[in-house]
Amino acid sequence: MNLRIKNVCVKLTGQNLDGLILSSSPNITYLTRFSSRDSYLLVSKKGNLYFTDSRYIEEAKIGLKRTAVVKKTNGSVFKIIADACRNLRLKRVGFEERHLPFGEYKKIKEGLNKTVDLIPIHSLVEGLRRIKDAQELEKIRKAARITIEALKFIKNFISPGIREIEVAAELESFIRYNGALGSAFEIIVASGPNSSFPHHLTSQRRIKNNEPVLIDLGVDYLGYKSDLTRVFFSGKINSLIRNIYDIVLKAQGLAIKKIKPAVSINKIDTAARQHMSKKGYGDFFGHNLGHGIGLEVHEAPHISTQENNPLKAGMVFTIEPAIYLPHKFGIRLEDMVLVTPQGCEVLSGTLHK
Amino acid sequence: MNLRIKNVCVKLTGQNLDGLILSSSPNITYLTRFSSRDSYLLVSKKGNLYFTDSRYIEEAKIGLKRTAVVKKTNGSVFKIIADACRNLRLKRVGFEERHLPFGEYKKIKEGLNKTVDLIPIHSLVEGLRRIKDAQELEKIRKAARITIEALKFIKNFISPGIREIEVAAELESFIRYNGALGSAFEIIVASGPNSSFPHHLTSQRRIKNNEPVLIDLGVDYLGYKSDLTRVFFSGKINSLIRNIYDIVLKAQGLAIKKIKPAVSINKIDTAARQHMSKKGYGDFFGHNLGHGIGLEVHEAPHISTQENNPLKAGMVFTIEPAIYLPHKFGIRLEDMVLVTPQGCEVLSGTLHK
Repeated sequence: MNLRIKNVCVKLTGQNLDGLILSSSPNITYLTRFSSRDSYLLVSKKGNLYFTDSRYIEEAKIGLKRTAVVKKTNGSVFKIIADACRNLRLKRVGFEERHLPFGEYKKIKEGLNKTVDLIPIHSLVEGLRRIKDAQELEKIRKAARITIEALKFIKNFISPGIREIEVAAELESFIRYNGALGSAFEIIVASGPNSSFPHHLTSQRRIKNNEPVLIDLGVDYLGYKSDLTRVFFSGKINSLIRNIYDIVLKAQGLAIKKIKPAVSINKIDTAARQHMSKKGYGDFFGHNLGHGIGLEVHEAPHISTQENNPLKAGMVFTIEPAIYLPHKFGIRLEDMVLVTPQGCEVLSGTLHK
Repeated sequence: MNLRIKNVCVKLTGQNLDGLILSSSPNITYLTRFSSRDSYLLVSKKGNLYFTDSRYIEEAKIGLKRTAVVKKTNGSVFKIIADACRNLRLKRVGFEERHLPFGEYKKIKEGLNKTVDLIPIHSLVEGLRRIKDAQELEKIRKAARITIEALKFIKNFISPGIREIEVAAELESFIRYNGALGSAFEIIVASGPNSSFPHHLTSQRRIKNNEPVLIDLGVDYLGYKSDLTRVFFSGKINSLIRNIYDIVLKAQGLAIKKIKPAVSINKIDTAARQHMSKKGYGDFFGHNLGHGIGLEVHEAPHISTQENNPLKAGMVFTIEPAIYLPHKFGIRLEDMVLVTPQGCEVLSGTLHK
């Protein structure tokens, strides 16, 4: 049994469970090191079973040879999962309450026929995923490097007359020619007033003269994600934009300076937020300061005012302060940071700001 | 109130409900005609409320002006939804059991404090979405057209030495320069033996001489999706591949010939499957014959042996018979079809097979 699944079993014992039904693809991928989609995994001390259908069965048989028994499902996967729990004589089985729709829960519950207790579990595997190991870091670093190269490349492409969607087209092509499997999310290219929408949908709009152009890009490298944001300018920058840019940049630096093991996570968020408030722009930064990143673009830990767990070496997350002036413009700067035993390393440190 | 939401209210009355909490982004987008992400909608005769956070609030205020009151949420969206149900004095509120994770259900339920009954609802809006209206068809047709052009374009690019991922790179760029918002799913480029995996992850593999190259491509045009598959050849085709190709092509034709209103959906699937079985390849086609397509790549109706509802004019779905010979190669041909009052129209009919 691999170490990651062993760690899950230890946690299960601690919660008096003898099995766990996983429905989150990133969690299953983490535990099996097999790129899982639309499938389910039952982990238990009595054996691990992977449930998938004809679309993935051949790859699964190869990829899971040493980790789990692969079961092909036709139609009612939930009945098959329930039967497996009963056949293994499990008594208390957990399920991922964040990742199992109510309707699927209901079907598994019906199949269990009251002989097995079904217990909602919150973020068990997500907790393990917060600390990245060396293999994971290697992939994250590579994802970050491809993204850095892509943003350096695109800088010269941005000019008045080019459409936002054309910028995205060039980036989508570049990252694949440079080793990525694809983008980690729909690339955000937000020009002029569009940059005031934090999650703008890249549009047919043409970039105008003397505008900010915000680009938020992440790639997928062997399952691991990156996420970086830079703001470029199509000409001259007026003094308001320059001023806001400097405030965001300073806020980010203050937050990054605080990052080291044992520091409470909310202190990082506060460091950035306080600076922006002091400058009068506290009300124009609505979202969290950052988020963990790995097999998912957004994962634990969340860098927010509510999170008072301590930082630990091996965590990787974004730091992305921003100021959005509604219908005018927005500035967001996003970097990826690794917590080291002594402090932190900015994984995207070589990318100009 | 718009017609789509009115139709929902009629259905709610029929099920003795006075409200419905929607958590599926495509369903919310359908009802509001606003491109919704990470948000919730409460529909009731006493008013419609849209719950979103700071990332989307400014766009939502503009896009939902005539449809719903927009509520900004900080942190506990589920408490806010529950409070809204109680403030509107709703008694029986439905929720989408396929689209609400158990953990979110639990939080809303807690917030309702036993004063409101929370009832699981299955595919209510999905049912309405099965029949496309003229505006929807226009967007689907455009999505199909962009995809057809992209596949015609890529045919000449495919040659020995090119990597699968490079084919994807060119397509990702092409579709954006030609009007698409992006791809509807990770483009599948599966060369040689990789084509035997129905959902192959596009890889760094270089195309070799005399191989089939399967490309499954869909685009997003203003929220509406397309989904087409063709198999190209990097040189000569051996007689086994040619034979399999002809069987799949014939099976597809037989299925399409059956399509017209009132025909039971499973008859379409059977028409294709029987032909492949007769030729000795029935065991090598594991998935459904097709799926509805619209705001989602996969939606109702599912074209499967289990589906015995009748076809209706205005339905749009794929027909994609396939034969996968494990670790050798696979052939899949996928077209998009619209059911018309007299029969059907193949929306991708101009694309060579």
